[in-house]
Amino acid sequence: MDKVNLAEKFARFTEHWSPKVVGEVDGYEIKLAKVHGDFVWHKHDDADELFLVTRGRLVIRLRDGEVALDAGELFVVPRGVEHQPSAADECEVVLFERKGLVNTGDVVEARTVAQPERI
Amino acid sequence: MDKVNLAEKFARFTEHWSPKVVGEVDGYEIKLAKVHGDFVWHKHDDADELFLVTRGRLVIRLRDGEVALDAGELFVVPRGVEHQPSAADECEVVLFERKGLVNTGDVVEARTVAQPERI
Repeated sequence: MDKVNLAEKFARFTEHWSPKVVGEVDGYEIKLAKVHGDFVWHKHDDADELFLVTRGRLVIRLRDGEVALDAGELFVVPRGVEHQPSAADECEVVLFERKGLVNTGDVVEARTVAQPERI
Repeated sequence: MDKVNLAEKFARFTEHWSPKVVGEVDGYEIKLAKVHGDFVWHKHDDADELFLVTRGRLVIRLRDGEVALDAGELFVVPRGVEHQPSAADECEVVLFERKGLVNTGDVVEARTVAQPERI
C-alpha cells in the first residue's frame, strides 16, 4: 500500500518497449513504458488497452487512420483492433490493461515481454 | 474511438465529488473527478480503487495513517479498506475502477452518484 510517483518510477529504467508493472486494481495492472521508434503491428483479441501519455508524443497507427497523443491525453485501443504504437522521439506512457496481457499481443518477436517486471 | 484530452474534459464540469466517465477498458471505467474538502469515510467491499492526481494535492485518510498525493502520483485503495479522500484546495483526480462502483461505497449520502455521467 505505497503510493506511486510516476516520475520516480520512470527514472528506474531506460529500456524501450518493456512495460514495468507499478500497481494493480483487481485483476488489472498499471504499467509504465518508455517507447521510441516503431513497435510491431499487433492486436489483443480479448482485451482493451489504455495508453495515457505523460511525456512526449505517441502515435497509435490503426488500419484506418492514426491517433496522436501528447502528454495528458489517453486512448483506448479496443480488443481485436490492430495497432502499431510509434514515437519519433522517446515518449513515456502509462498503460492500464488486464493482468497477463502480452505487449506484442498476437505476435511473438524480439520485444515480446510475457512476464513484465514489477518496479 | 476518440482520444481523451484530460484538461479538455476537466474543463467541462465544475462540481466536486461527482465523477464523470471518459472511457472504458473492458469492464472498467476511467473517471475524472474534481474534489475539495472532506469526502465521507467509506469502503468498497469488492473492488480496488485507483486515484491518480493530475492537479493539486489529494490526501487519502486511512484508519491507520494517510497518503498524500501530488500531481503525477497514484495510489490504489484495496477493496475493503475504509478511506476518506480530502483536499484542502481543489484537486483533479483520475479514477480507474470497476464499472458500477459507487463513489461513496457502502455509504449513501447527499454526494452519492450511482450512475455517473459520461462526458
